[in-house]
Amino acid sequence: MNLMQLYDMIDLDQLSVEEIMDLIALSDSIRKNPWAYRESCRGKIMATLFYEPSTRTKMSFQTAMYRLGGEVIGFDNPENTSVSKGESLKDTITVVSGYADVIVMRNPREGAAAAASLYSKSPIINAGDGGHLHPTQTLTDLVTLYNEKGRLDHLRIGLCGDLKNGRTVHSLIRTMTRFPGSSFVLISTPELALPKYVRDVMDAAGCCYTEAASLERALPELDVLYMTRIQQERFASLEEYERQKGVFVLDGVKLRSAGPDLKILHPLPRVDEITVDVDNDPRASYFDQTVYGMYARMALILTILQSRDRPKKRKIPRSTHPHRCSNPKCITQTEHYLPGLFTEAGDMLLCSYCDEGTLI
Amino acid sequence: MNLMQLYDMIDLDQLSVEEIMDLIALSDSIRKNPWAYRESCRGKIMATLFYEPSTRTKMSFQTAMYRLGGEVIGFDNPENTSVSKGESLKDTITVVSGYADVIVMRNPREGAAAAASLYSKSPIINAGDGGHLHPTQTLTDLVTLYNEKGRLDHLRIGLCGDLKNGRTVHSLIRTMTRFPGSSFVLISTPELALPKYVRDVMDAAGCCYTEAASLERALPELDVLYMTRIQQERFASLEEYERQKGVFVLDGVKLRSAGPDLKILHPLPRVDEITVDVDNDPRASYFDQTVYGMYARMALILTILQSRDRPKKRKIPRSTHPHRCSNPKCITQTEHYLPGLFTEAGDMLLCSYCDEGTLI
Amino acid sequence: MNLMQLYDMIDLDQLSVEEIMDLIALSDSIRKNPWAYRESCRGKIMATLFYEPSTRTKMSFQTAMYRLGGEVIGFDNPENTSVSKGESLKDTITVVSGYADVIVMRNPREGAAAAASLYSKSPIINAGDGGHLHPTQTLTDLVTLYNEKGRLDHLRIGLCGDLKNGRTVHSLIRTMTRFPGSSFVLISTPELALPKYVRDVMDAAGCCYTEAASLERALPELDVLYMTRIQQERFASLEEYERQKGVFVLDGVKLRSAGPDLKILHPLPRVDEITVDVDNDPRASYFDQTVYGMYARMALILTILQSRDRPKKRKIPRSTHPHRCSNPKCITQTEHYLPGLFTEAGDMLLCSYCDEGTLI
Repeated sequence: MNLMQLYDMIDLDQLSVEEIMDLIALSDSIRKNPWAYRESCRGKIMATLFYEPSTRTKMSFQTAMYRLGGEVIGFDNPENTSVSKGESLKDTITVVSGYADVIVMRNPREGAAAAASLYSKSPIINAGDGGHLHPTQTLTDLVTLYNEKGRLDHLRIGLCGDLKNGRTVHSLIRTMTRFPGSSFVLISTPELALPKYVRDVMDAAGCCYTEAASLERALPELDVLYMTRIQQERFASLEEYERQKGVFVLDGVKLRSAGPDLKILHPLPRVDEITVDVDNDPRASYFDQTVYGMYARMALILTILQSRDRPKKRKIPRSTHPHRCSNPKCITQTEHYLPGLFTEAGDMLLCSYCDEGTLI
Repeated sequence: MNLMQLYDMIDLDQLSVEEIMDLIALSDSIRKNPWAYRESCRGKIMATLFYEPSTRTKMSFQTAMYRLGGEVIGFDNPENTSVSKGESLKDTITVVSGYADVIVMRNPREGAAAAASLYSKSPIINAGDGGHLHPTQTLTDLVTLYNEKGRLDHLRIGLCGDLKNGRTVHSLIRTMTRFPGSSFVLISTPELALPKYVRDVMDAAGCCYTEAASLERALPELDVLYMTRIQQERFASLEEYERQKGVFVLDGVKLRSAGPDLKILHPLPRVDEITVDVDNDPRASYFDQTVYGMYARMALILTILQSRDRPKKRKIPRSTHPHRCSNPKCITQTEHYLPGLFTEAGDMLLCSYCDEGTLI
Repeated sequence: MNLMQLYDMIDLDQLSVEEIMDLIALSDSIRKNPWAYRESCRGKIMATLFYEPSTRTKMSFQTAMYRLGGEVIGFDNPENTSVSKGESLKDTITVVSGYADVIVMRNPREGAAAAASLYSKSPIINAGDGGHLHPTQTLTDLVTLYNEKGRLDHLRIGLCGDLKNGRTVHSLIRTMTRFPGSSFVLISTPELALPKYVRDVMDAAGCCYTEAASLERALPELDVLYMTRIQQERFASLEEYERQKGVFVLDGVKLRSAGPDLKILHPLPRVDEITVDVDNDPRASYFDQTVYGMYARMALILTILQSRDRPKKRKIPRSTHPHRCSNPKCITQTEHYLPGLFTEAGDMLLCSYCDEGTLI
């Protein structure tokens, strides 16, 4: 009996804290009694449009839909599609939304999901739009934290690895600042430090955060450790990489300094930033995290498909802006028919697709 | 309660006008009451064997089968299949027809679907055999016309673009000549004009047709405009392309000269031969067309799977012909075990696979 | 009412003859009354993880699962997966076994299925691990023989082609030596003769076997002919290939010397080692074999999913061996975290993954 109304899922920020808690509660209900939901989406079709491959995310969504009784169509190799013949995102989305009841889309361009939602006759779930947003990963993280820690407030969260480019890290921080008492420990190199705009979000929310140059120093005080990978090519030089890499690798020895209630998360895939001997530690939650992710996606799909207020056709905003977004990765750079949509913020225009700001 | 009996769907010409109308009526019944059909093919399996990629067509068929309650297997990349190990079409079809209740096949060779039907234990649906036939596209066009125009007779149909190579155009004309009062306006360059054999079909049926050198001149008198794309490489030269291309692009300005009841169709994908500003015009039917296509395929699959007179095994014709088809694109050129099958027509032999004629 | 308990299916040798007969009986029951089983796996999900493509095997498994009412997820192109980002087999299996109720895996490395079973939370079915094992092909062969010959004992089985590298041949011989009265005729070149360890298996079981240099000589005395392909590159030279190839090709003329009850099997795909004119001979069973294979896989999946004694988590053996397997194709060569597991056999250590022996 979930009465929450939800149409698209482009950005987790569109949900209130109450709505997030509703989705978490529904995830848990499904996890504890999956058979009660196994016919919930019978006769419904989900399309997975993956403009860049991500087998892991796709399998999670597919499993979620199948466990609700629905079916799945889609593609994961745009080389084989009409896209390679020059078809626009608008046309692909218009056609596929005539086939499917809900569309899950991953696209390398920032703002692609928001652009798709302008033309789709069916709800859009953003499964990653470039380095911009990946709301179902963050929802997965939240469901994991809630279940493994028992709460989402007053958590001291360590974030380790490439904090500069880590989309999942930025999104998790942004969301956690909305829960009371969150504090953060940033564990990275100066070159890969958290961008200023995420620090601004923490400051605005009044959250404490500190920095730590190594895992060892940070571990004792953490409730949660969120590990991510630092790609070799992110380091200044190969020497720098060789000198630094061990500092950000979690192994059984370093883990000895952590408390017994620590929970370790990782968005996966993991390469070597967590050693295999950690896997059997009861504090390692990164594999359970993928299972929580499946239930989180079931809750999301079900909520969206059960919502009533589904507009038959979206209205393209009539009053648009002549300015073009300056972000070279923005979807508007390649899909030229898209109307220029901006929000004014002081002397800035914020692109409604990719959220990038431009000085007027 | 559709009592129509249908085994394979290789060529739309195999159906009588009455049978075509039955399929259209069933499409409409499904569209108006989809839930009544959602278990119709429960327990049935459809194989989609795509020897060349066509994600759009494949998704349409898959959606159709899922909305009837069935399941789908198949491949869309022959590189990954036994085909790449040198397996013959005969063997692939024999094996897959042991798994699936119906096979949907796309193949770049002309006559491939007819060849497959010789060996298949299950019905074959032709989803395109090279430049030869694509009957479910034409069925889609007919369902769209019937619904959007309210009739299939006495329609004045403009066909614009590459009329020389457009398989869908040839097939639509051939089928529409069977309905009373059809007339045609051919809008193209001299180099890309409709082939003589299609003109012969119109002449034989007593249909009027005229030519027009531009969209503007043709538009005011049309009931239907069927747009197709002219690929740049079809033009004599780049200068010719630059000089001509605008003539065959439909935009909002040209559309002003058309009547209010015009309906615009396009087999999609569209590149730039229809400008985006036309999309919201109520006369634009090309996106609805893809939805009609899904229902047309549902009607076709359902009719085939419900038909009773399904031969367990097809008999290979015993009296075959020593002549080989001279069409270099014919399936018999690569699958050498295929029996030579021909129909005599005057001093010509017509290949039963690809329909190409050879002088005896 | 199959009370057989089965968790993984890594190697057919793990089954007793009685259990094999149970699976054959269940295959037949499903084949004769498929509708009784079409909801047996409703709500269950099978993952097909194909680290190398094999569309035929994958389609057989998919069809089997769909005909039991289940669903399928998976990948068949590791280029598009987390694997290409450096993810270990352990991690992929751990994650996917959180999504799926049973995992079907094909992998080019020997012992990969056994390795996967150490970490999977769901049962593993080996769909081929390099040149090592392919138990469902052998099960397919057994179901075919039982149905086409009426028995599995006292069969005189000819095996023709590349007996050195033919994984399916080795596995069939190994299994048939467990049935009373099996005898074998080996039809191959000296270079492609059966390896000594398979001859040792026949000797140990007290089975008669003879060699034949051509099909013609062997055919009259056979109950069963198991054909396989000799790849051109296996011959010593192109001249040798040209001189020999006809000897191992079965055609209608050679077949005249065979008895009326002979049954011809082939694991497929076939290229030209059986000519097309044999296909319509009532003794040709190789296409029926693929249908039996589908039912064999249904029986296997159903038995595994209905078994009760499913351990929630596998225990990694604690006492492992410091020795590393010397087989360059063994999965332990690339997945370095795998514990060294061996069985001692005299002065040999047998690798528990790939079964290769190393002198201590």
